[in-house]
Amino acid sequence: MQYNKNKEIIYTIDDLEIDIQLILNVIDERGAATIGLQFPEGLKRQAVNISRIIQQHRRVEVLISGNPCFGACDIDTQLIELTDVLFHFGHSNQGFCKEVVYVEARSKIDIAPVVARTIKILSGKRIGIITTVQHVHKLQEIQDMLVAEGFESVIEEGDAHIAYPGQVIGCNFSAARGNCDEYIYVGGGEFHPTGASITTRKNVIIANPYNNNVYKINPEPLIRRRCAMIAKAFDAANFGIIVSTKIGQQRLALAGALKRKIEEHNKNADLIIMDLVTPEQLLGFKPDAFVNTACPRIAIDDSKRFNIPVLTPVELEILIGEREWKEFAMDEILAGDR
Amino acid sequence: MQYNKNKEIIYTIDDLEIDIQLILNVIDERGAATIGLQFPEGLKRQAVNISRIIQQHRRVEVLISGNPCFGACDIDTQLIELTDVLFHFGHSNQGFCKEVVYVEARSKIDIAPVVARTIKILSGKRIGIITTVQHVHKLQEIQDMLVAEGFESVIEEGDAHIAYPGQVIGCNFSAARGNCDEYIYVGGGEFHPTGASITTRKNVIIANPYNNNVYKINPEPLIRRRCAMIAKAFDAANFGIIVSTKIGQQRLALAGALKRKIEEHNKNADLIIMDLVTPEQLLGFKPDAFVNTACPRIAIDDSKRFNIPVLTPVELEILIGEREWKEFAMDEILAGDR
Repeated sequence: MQYNKNKEIIYTIDDLEIDIQLILNVIDERGAATIGLQFPEGLKRQAVNISRIIQQHRRVEVLISGNPCFGACDIDTQLIELTDVLFHFGHSNQGFCKEVVYVEARSKIDIAPVVARTIKILSGKRIGIITTVQHVHKLQEIQDMLVAEGFESVIEEGDAHIAYPGQVIGCNFSAARGNCDEYIYVGGGEFHPTGASITTRKNVIIANPYNNNVYKINPEPLIRRRCAMIAKAFDAANFGIIVSTKIGQQRLALAGALKRKIEEHNKNADLIIMDLVTPEQLLGFKPDAFVNTACPRIAIDDSKRFNIPVLTPVELEILIGEREWKEFAMDEILAGDR
Repeated sequence: MQYNKNKEIIYTIDDLEIDIQLILNVIDERGAATIGLQFPEGLKRQAVNISRIIQQHRRVEVLISGNPCFGACDIDTQLIELTDVLFHFGHSNQGFCKEVVYVEARSKIDIAPVVARTIKILSGKRIGIITTVQHVHKLQEIQDMLVAEGFESVIEEGDAHIAYPGQVIGCNFSAARGNCDEYIYVGGGEFHPTGASITTRKNVIIANPYNNNVYKINPEPLIRRRCAMIAKAFDAANFGIIVSTKIGQQRLALAGALKRKIEEHNKNADLIIMDLVTPEQLLGFKPDAFVNTACPRIAIDDSKRFNIPVLTPVELEILIGEREWKEFAMDEILAGDR
């Protein structure tokens, strides 16, 4: 924790900064007596520290959410009922819930060196920039670097689920609509740039400031794995359609439509609705294949933990012949989808 | 599934009978178009079958809850919002929620032989009978057997959380208040009779109709384990108080009172609130000890899965010296506690 001259209180975890002053200001403005704190898994070990810092500065009762939390869409709605304000850490506002104050975690890491190296391997003229919320405050710096080297630079607006232009999240690539020749993705991990690459069908160059790796993402391995998954579900006669009750993931209308499509093809489908979706919890149901309408990442990231195929809605459509392979796309939850 | 001459539809799983006709009647009475089905873990594998039987008889949309379910107190409240009726299987009504229809599972197993053997070893005159909901329809038969052998027989009323006289559940032994010399417990498992034994301080004789075992329960091993747990927490300076958001388990007022007690003893306490309580999900918080105000069985049944001590509220009071060892008691959630 550090106090700066503007009386701002910043809590620093590794390279991430969390604005405690924002929390204190909201408590004061709303006269909050009881507050909730919700942390994604990676920040949970800081929960008690952050709670105590807040209580050193303000007399409030604090309830820390112990539930799993995997995104801005994953709001502890029961905690909202029990508190005056719910502070949700590490994600940006997706517009699902007015009662929640999002407390982002901003990375202090210097992205300039890796972006400089990335610029050298660009082949296009008009370059889109995408990143995660941890680095969105660096977009202008990246744009300036591109322009200084003679490129055009595009930071596209996302839809209403996206808090900042240029920001991508795991289920929404709407800030990468393809209004450019190729993309720079600044951040860690391959999921977001792979998704953007499949969605845009454009080159996406990873500029990873954590390990300084720079390379063009290759979406083919993921596409091949998904093709194999569809093949594994080929003979399925009984489908379990997974529906989430999470505020930002609930696609019950889509699930109902998929059920009717499956039944039109003379197969069975049951709707299974749940909060946290885990392979263990679905073990008892034993269909031949699942179709996942909850968090789109479940079908991709967790597929090895399920012992039966888990398809996205797009992949189900391919399986039953209502969509062609060349129309393969990432499953996204776009504004207006719910 | 079998149709009897009264047009009743009974679904049979192993030795358990589930009254499907009850479900159809409720659907008809309420004109339900969308229904929810919630099953405890042991019945989940029957969920799809039961759903399809209902749909063979009535045109309804069915949403099956995929969430874990560990008791009548563990109601899928989000599913209530999405359906006209929520059918909750395998438990009896605890009075928490008017929107839920409980569909019990009644055991067909013959309890007479094991009860006959149990009667031979009774040492008291006035015998209380306790059992779980699966066998409550056999209480009269047990009572008749006792009376025929010259015993007085008592079936005590429980509090408002208990659906049937003589019924015990894992967190409520109010139908065993000790108005007798000793108890017969008819059912499987040792948790309920052990709890009743500690609560009543009376002999409890197990009559297990599943394996035909008959013996007097010995509560000492459990009491010794809990004593060791309290000892392990002796030096704890930082406590995490676990609070459940489940409709029948939420004891936030108790949790707040325990937090203040802990702080009065110059130790720290944080309130951690969650739906499903698992050791994995609590890993990130790392206090020196937990105090569990959620389902009372968590501290007992799951203690080996936590790597730090988990105390009940009663045990915390013993730890901090506000209760004496001789006042050790089971943690119960009694009517009026919430």
